[in-house]
Amino acid sequence: MTDFEEIGKEFLSFYYDTFDNNREGLADLYQEESMLTYNGEQFKGQESIVNKLAGLKFNSIQHQLNDYQSHPSLQDSVLVSACGTIFIDNNENGINFSQVFLLAPVQGSNSYFIYNDIFSLNLN
Amino acid sequence: MTDFEEIGKEFLSFYYDTFDNNREGLADLYQEESMLTYNGEQFKGQESIVNKLAGLKFNSIQHQLNDYQSHPSLQDSVLVSACGTIFIDNNENGINFSQVFLLAPVQGSNSYFIYNDIFSLNLN
Repeated sequence: MTDFEEIGKEFLSFYYDTFDNNREGLADLYQEESMLTYNGEQFKGQESIVNKLAGLKFNSIQHQLNDYQSHPSLQDSVLVSACGTIFIDNNENGINFSQVFLLAPVQGSNSYFIYNDIFSLNLN
Repeated sequence: MTDFEEIGKEFLSFYYDTFDNNREGLADLYQEESMLTYNGEQFKGQESIVNKLAGLKFNSIQHQLNDYQSHPSLQDSVLVSACGTIFIDNNENGINFSQVFLLAPVQGSNSYFIYNDIFSLNLN
């Protein structure tokens, strides 16, 4: 497994685990340049993005990852494309989703932040 | 509609029209740095990518675009996420697909090339 594949895999595991257990903890992954599109709605910057994610109206959520791909991209970033199923409030019927992340290196560190995040539910 | 949304929209229209009518014509959109993942298989560089796309085993294909999102990204690139349905050899039953492009500016021009291309059929 190459570096970018390992980075994508570890990121997705951390991201969905944090989303499902401690949504406020996602704040550390976004910065001022970050942009989120959540089902067609756009948010720019860490505060705006985390307010949206932390304010989603359900008590519990589980993400099940079905497939993903990673690519090396511009300026040592990593492009990650994922699809899976979410289960809300322990409902047995899941909803399919797809999500794309562009992970950019944090300057002076060997970690990454989310530069782009596009999340879509597949309702059809 | 902002610039990056217009760029994403025009790109997708051109890309799928070219794919459906003249697959060899896609060569101009890829360069040596380009990378494609096609249903899990990786290809690097213009020649390798276009050989794969031009060699796909069907007589005709139509892409129907159902939804897409664009984001501004690193180094004036544009991230485009698309989903839709493909119809192969005039079969009435389409297959859902999702695709992600990172479009990078061509130096000394106001056009873009495909830096990253991740294509996946959604068979489940």
